[in-house]
Amino acid sequence: MKAFLDDNFLLNNDAAVRLFNEYAKDMPIIDYHCHIDAKDIAENKEFKNITELWLGGDHYKWRFMRAAGVDEYFITGDATDKEKFLKWIEVLSSAFGNPLYHWSHMELKRYFGFEGHVTKGCGEELWDKCNAVITSGNFKAKDIISMSDVEILCTTDDPADTLEYHDIIKEDTSFKCRVLPAFRPDNAMNVEKENYPDYIAKLGKVSGIKIDSFDNLIKALKERIHFFNEKGCRLSDHGLWYIPFSDADEVKANEVFAKRINGEIPNPLECDIFQKTFLIKLHEEYKKLNWVSQLHYGCKRDNNTVMFKKIGPNTGFDAISRIACEDSLAGFLDCLNSKDALGKIIVYSLNPNANEAIDTICACFQDGKSVNKIQHGSAWWFNDHYLGMNAHLKSLASNGNLPGFVGMLTDSRSFVSYTRHEYFRRILCNFIGEAVENGEFPEDYKILSKIVKDISYYNAKNYFNF
Amino acid sequence: MKAFLDDNFLLNNDAAVRLFNEYAKDMPIIDYHCHIDAKDIAENKEFKNITELWLGGDHYKWRFMRAAGVDEYFITGDATDKEKFLKWIEVLSSAFGNPLYHWSHMELKRYFGFEGHVTKGCGEELWDKCNAVITSGNFKAKDIISMSDVEILCTTDDPADTLEYHDIIKEDTSFKCRVLPAFRPDNAMNVEKENYPDYIAKLGKVSGIKIDSFDNLIKALKERIHFFNEKGCRLSDHGLWYIPFSDADEVKANEVFAKRINGEIPNPLECDIFQKTFLIKLHEEYKKLNWVSQLHYGCKRDNNTVMFKKIGPNTGFDAISRIACEDSLAGFLDCLNSKDALGKIIVYSLNPNANEAIDTICACFQDGKSVNKIQHGSAWWFNDHYLGMNAHLKSLASNGNLPGFVGMLTDSRSFVSYTRHEYFRRILCNFIGEAVENGEFPEDYKILSKIVKDISYYNAKNYFNF
Amino acid sequence: MKAFLDDNFLLNNDAAVRLFNEYAKDMPIIDYHCHIDAKDIAENKEFKNITELWLGGDHYKWRFMRAAGVDEYFITGDATDKEKFLKWIEVLSSAFGNPLYHWSHMELKRYFGFEGHVTKGCGEELWDKCNAVITSGNFKAKDIISMSDVEILCTTDDPADTLEYHDIIKEDTSFKCRVLPAFRPDNAMNVEKENYPDYIAKLGKVSGIKIDSFDNLIKALKERIHFFNEKGCRLSDHGLWYIPFSDADEVKANEVFAKRINGEIPNPLECDIFQKTFLIKLHEEYKKLNWVSQLHYGCKRDNNTVMFKKIGPNTGFDAISRIACEDSLAGFLDCLNSKDALGKIIVYSLNPNANEAIDTICACFQDGKSVNKIQHGSAWWFNDHYLGMNAHLKSLASNGNLPGFVGMLTDSRSFVSYTRHEYFRRILCNFIGEAVENGEFPEDYKILSKIVKDISYYNAKNYFNF
Repeated sequence: MKAFLDDNFLLNNDAAVRLFNEYAKDMPIIDYHCHIDAKDIAENKEFKNITELWLGGDHYKWRFMRAAGVDEYFITGDATDKEKFLKWIEVLSSAFGNPLYHWSHMELKRYFGFEGHVTKGCGEELWDKCNAVITSGNFKAKDIISMSDVEILCTTDDPADTLEYHDIIKEDTSFKCRVLPAFRPDNAMNVEKENYPDYIAKLGKVSGIKIDSFDNLIKALKERIHFFNEKGCRLSDHGLWYIPFSDADEVKANEVFAKRINGEIPNPLECDIFQKTFLIKLHEEYKKLNWVSQLHYGCKRDNNTVMFKKIGPNTGFDAISRIACEDSLAGFLDCLNSKDALGKIIVYSLNPNANEAIDTICACFQDGKSVNKIQHGSAWWFNDHYLGMNAHLKSLASNGNLPGFVGMLTDSRSFVSYTRHEYFRRILCNFIGEAVENGEFPEDYKILSKIVKDISYYNAKNYFNF
Repeated sequence: MKAFLDDNFLLNNDAAVRLFNEYAKDMPIIDYHCHIDAKDIAENKEFKNITELWLGGDHYKWRFMRAAGVDEYFITGDATDKEKFLKWIEVLSSAFGNPLYHWSHMELKRYFGFEGHVTKGCGEELWDKCNAVITSGNFKAKDIISMSDVEILCTTDDPADTLEYHDIIKEDTSFKCRVLPAFRPDNAMNVEKENYPDYIAKLGKVSGIKIDSFDNLIKALKERIHFFNEKGCRLSDHGLWYIPFSDADEVKANEVFAKRINGEIPNPLECDIFQKTFLIKLHEEYKKLNWVSQLHYGCKRDNNTVMFKKIGPNTGFDAISRIACEDSLAGFLDCLNSKDALGKIIVYSLNPNANEAIDTICACFQDGKSVNKIQHGSAWWFNDHYLGMNAHLKSLASNGNLPGFVGMLTDSRSFVSYTRHEYFRRILCNFIGEAVENGEFPEDYKILSKIVKDISYYNAKNYFNF
Repeated sequence: MKAFLDDNFLLNNDAAVRLFNEYAKDMPIIDYHCHIDAKDIAENKEFKNITELWLGGDHYKWRFMRAAGVDEYFITGDATDKEKFLKWIEVLSSAFGNPLYHWSHMELKRYFGFEGHVTKGCGEELWDKCNAVITSGNFKAKDIISMSDVEILCTTDDPADTLEYHDIIKEDTSFKCRVLPAFRPDNAMNVEKENYPDYIAKLGKVSGIKIDSFDNLIKALKERIHFFNEKGCRLSDHGLWYIPFSDADEVKANEVFAKRINGEIPNPLECDIFQKTFLIKLHEEYKKLNWVSQLHYGCKRDNNTVMFKKIGPNTGFDAISRIACEDSLAGFLDCLNSKDALGKIIVYSLNPNANEAIDTICACFQDGKSVNKIQHGSAWWFNDHYLGMNAHLKSLASNGNLPGFVGMLTDSRSFVSYTRHEYFRRILCNFIGEAVENGEFPEDYKILSKIVKDISYYNAKNYFNF
C-alpha cells in the first residue's frame, strides 16, 4: 500500500520513478496555453486570500460543488470568502476520483506545505495556513511563476486587445519568465452571437480599419495578427463547437456578414460557411508568419441558459459535444494543404472518442518538414485527468509519434496550477515505465531519457518559434 | 492465482476486500428499476423448474445461445425445458468473458449452493440440483426477494395498467419488501407504431378521458400519473432510440396525433417533434410531483424483422445505437430548466461512447438542490458487465461526483438476478480500493466507508422520495 | 523487470505463458485476408534487399517516418535503398508505443536472428545482416511462407483479374500452402471515381458482358463471382467509407449508372443509393455460393490531395472516419435477412468507438446455423496494435461470443508480417490468462485450451469453406 501523494505518486514501477526523478522533474515549464490575465502579472498581483486565488474563477471547482449539493450562494453568491472556502473543503474531502482531488492536494502540498489529506473539518486550519503564505509578501503573481520554474507563458488574448500589459511585463528585466500573447479571434468568428456588431465596432476602432464587409474583417484581423506578431505572439487559438462542414466561400461569407451587420442572425448553415471561410483566411496568414495554430473543438458551451443569463460564460456550464466532425477536420486540413497554407497546427478534441481519428488524421498531413507538424494536443479541460491523459497517450503512441509530442499546458486561469505539469509528467513517466517493466520497450535510458525530456520540455521549445 | 469465484472475487487488493466485506456486502438492496411482473409477486409464484426461472424470458441468454450455434428450437422453440437447459449449460461452459458467465455462476452459488464451475457435461447434475431447490416450497417469488434482502423494488408499468397486483402485494403485511410501480409511457409516445390507435383507445378507457388530440393524450397521462402517484409511484422511465432533435411544438404535435389517429404513419421528423413535445409535457408534471425521471436512450430495437414477426419484441434482437444525440440531450435539459420544470433525472446511455459527454452534460444542470440532481445512471443492459461498469465508474469519477451516485439496479426480468448488486458492489469496491492501494486516495476509512455505503444504499434511499 | 521481447513477451502471467506455449504457438496460420501479390508467389520472388522487402510498399512505416520529420526524399523519393533504410532505422529506434516498434523487432528476431533492440546507429549492421539472409537463396517468397507455417493464404483480387498466377501457384505441388483468391469489387462500386467508366469497360471485356446498365453490371459481376468460385475463392471483401444509409433501389441504381456512363458524377445521395443496391445484389449471390463476405468500413481515404496526385492511393494518407453508420449496418443486415440472403459476414470497423455497437448488432443476426455466423472481425489496420486488439477482445467477450471468433489475419502487403499472428496470439493468451489468474475464469485447461486453439486456428478452418 502506497501512502497518498508520496514521492512516488502515480509512479508505480521502478522505471517510472527513475524517469521522473532523473529526467522529467527538473525540466522548466513552457506553458504555451493558459488563461492567466497579463494584467495580474504586470501588476504583480497579491491575492487577498485562498478563496480569491483558488475559487475566484475556477469553474471546475464550482461545477463540483453544485454536483455535491452546495447552494449557489456559497459558489458565486454572496457568502463570505471564508464560508465559500469551508464549503469547498467540505466537498473536496470526498471528491474521490475527480481530478480536482489530485490537483488541489498537489497545490496544497507544493505551494502551501500541507502534507496530509483534506477532511471535512480541516477547513479552518487550511484557511489560516494558506492565507499565511498568500499574504506573506513572497507569494505575488511573479513569485509564483518564478518558483514554478516557468520559462515561457502564453496568455490568451482577443484581437482587440492592446497588449499593453505585455509591454509592462517586458520592462521588468528581473522577471525571467517570458510572457507572450496568443491570438484568439473567436469573438470575430462567432457571427451568431448577440453582441457581434458591438465587437466588430470595437475591433474596427483598434485596428483602424472600417469593417463593413467580411473582406475588411479579414483585413483588420491581419493587421492585428501582425501587431500581435511584433509583440512576440507565435500562436493562435480557435475554440470551436465543431469543425465546419461546408466548403469555404468568400462571396457567401460576405453576404452572411452583411446580413449580420444589418441585425439579422444568420442560420446555422450560413454560420457554418462563414466560419469555415474565416478559418481558412486566417490560417493562410498564420502560415506566412510561421505561427502555430491551435484548433480545439468538441465543446458545447453555455448549456444552461438560466445560469448563463445570471452569471455569464465560463462559469461551469459547458460540456463535451458529440458532433463527430473529424471527416470535416480532414477536409479542412486538406483544403489548407492544397492552398499551400498548412502550417503547424495543434488539434485538441474535448471528446475522447475522437482521439484515434484525430491521430490518424494528423498522420495524413505530416510532411517531414518538422517533427509532428500536425500535433494531437494534450488531453485538456474535460480530459485533463488520469483517465483522459492515459487515453490520449495510448492513442497517440499507437497511432502516431509520441516521442514528438509537444506535451502539457495548463489551460488554466490559476497561478497555482503549474503542478499540472508535474501531474502530466508523472503520468507520462508511469506510462513509459510500465512498458519498460513489462518488456514492451527496452530498458535503454539513452533512448528513454530523450523521449521523456523532449515531451516534458524540448519538443515545445523546438516546435514553437518563440 | 486466485480460485474462481472465491470470497475475494473481483476484489484484487486489500482495501477492496475490506471495503466490500465491512461496508458494502450487507447493505440492503433498493432495486429501483426492474422488469419483474407484479403479478408473480402478488401470487407468490413458484417456478416449475430452472428453465422457467432462468431461461423463460432471459433474452441475454438467448442471444448468447444463438451466437454459439444453438438452433432456435432449443431457445424459444418446442424443445423440452430440460433439453433447453442442457443446451444452455453446454454453451455456458465456455462463455469466456461474457457477463452471463459471472452472473450465472453467482446465481448458482448464492441461490443453489453450486460451488464449482460449469462444464459441458454437468447439465444433468445441475438440472436436479436447481430443481430440488426451486420446488422445495421455500423458493417462491417472495422467498427469493426476502432472502436477497430487497428493501424496495420498483416494477415497470404501462400507464394503462390498473396496478391491482401492487394493491394485493401491499395487503400481505408479512412481506417486508415494498413493491412500487414505475411509470413507463413509451406506448403512448411511440406514435409511429402499428398498434398505436388501439393503445390510445385502451388508455382512453382506463383514464376515462376521450383521447382525440395530443392535448387530451397529455391530459389522460396526467390523470394516470396522479393515479400512479397515489399508488406510491415516484419515478418514471422513458426508453428512447435517441433524444429528439427538434424543438417542442404543441400545435405540430396535435397535427401529428390527428394524422396518426386517421391512420397515417407520421414521417420521422414528425415523430421527432411529437416525441420531444410529449417528453417536455410529461416532465413538467413529474417535476410538480417531485418524481425522478429516467431517460434511457441509445438502443435500436427489433433489428431482426424476421424474428420480430415470429417471436415479438424483447427476445434478443436489440442493439446499441450510434446516433450521437448528446448535444440534443443538453438542449432538452436546458428547455426543461428554462421552464422551471427540471426535476431529478437519471440519464442512462446504452452507448458507452457517450459516458464522458453525459457526465459533463449532467454537470451543467446540477443546481445544489440535491446531490447529483441529474444522475448518470448505472452501466446497464449492454454495459452491465465488468468492462461497462468500470468505464462508467471511471467517467463519472473523472467528470462528475462519484460519491453522489445512486448506484445499481437490476433492470431484470429474473427473480435471481439480485446478485448483480453484489457484482456491482465488488467492482465498485475494487475500483476504489485500487486507488487507495496505489496512493491515489488516502487510506481514510471514515471517508471511504461513507462513499461505499452511500453508493451501495444510502444515496438511492435519499435520492428517491419513496 | 522483463527483458524486452523475451520468450514471455506480452505474456504477463503464468496462465498466459502456458496457454501460448502449449496451445497457441504451434498452430498453423490461416491468413484469410492479405494483400500479397499472387504474382510474387507464382514467380517465387527473391527480394533485392531489406528495403524492398520492408519499405517497398509499407505505408505504415512511411507515415511514421513523415511524422518523425523525415523528408519524402527518403520515403518514396529518389534516395537509395540504403539511405532509406538508415533513415527508417533511425526513427524506429525511438518509436515508443507504435505497433511498428513491436512488429519490426519481431520480424528482425524471427526472420533475421537479430536479438537486441534497434538504436540510432545500428542501421549499417542491420543492413548487412538482413541482406545476407534475403539474398541467401533460401529466402524467396515461398520459403518465407513455408517457414511461417501458413496453411492457407487468401489474396485480394479485383473482379477483372484473370487469376492466372493463382493457377501457376497451384501447379507447384511441392508448395504446401494453398493460395486462394478473394473477391474485392470496390472498383465496380465506387461510381463516383474519375476512372470508373474505364474500369467498367475493362470489366466488360474480361466478363464478356456488355455493361450498359446497372443490371448488366451485376450480371457481369455474377459471372466473375462464379469464375472466382471455380478458382477456389470463398470470400469477398468490401472496403467502404461508411455503410450506405439509403434503401436499395434498382431503378434508381440504373439511373445513376446511366448518368455516370454519360460522364456525369453522381451526387453523394445518388452514390449512396447505388452502393446500397450494389451491396445487396452481390450479397444475394454470395449467400447462394456460401461465401463469407467481409465488410470493412470507417476509413476515409486519400485525405491529402496533394500527395494523392503525386504518389497515388495506399501511400499512407488514409484515416479513421467518424461517420457513425452502425444503425445503418443493422438495417443492411436486416434487409439481407428479410430476403433470405444473409450469409456469413465479417464486419470490421476502423473506428474503435464502434466496437460495442458492432458486437451488439452481430448478436441480432446470429441464427444458430453456425457459430458466430456474423463475426466482429479482428482489430486491424489502424487498430492492429496492443490497444486496439485488447479493446476488440474486451468488447467481443463482453457483448458476444469470444470463443467463436475466427481470429487474426495480416491484411498486409509484406511477406514477413506473419509474426502478427504471433503478436495477436500473445495478446489473446494474456487477455485470457489474466482472467484466470484473477479468478475471473476457472483454471480448467480443458476449456481454456479449446478456446485458444479455436481462435488461433480451428474457428477459421471451420468458418470458411475452403
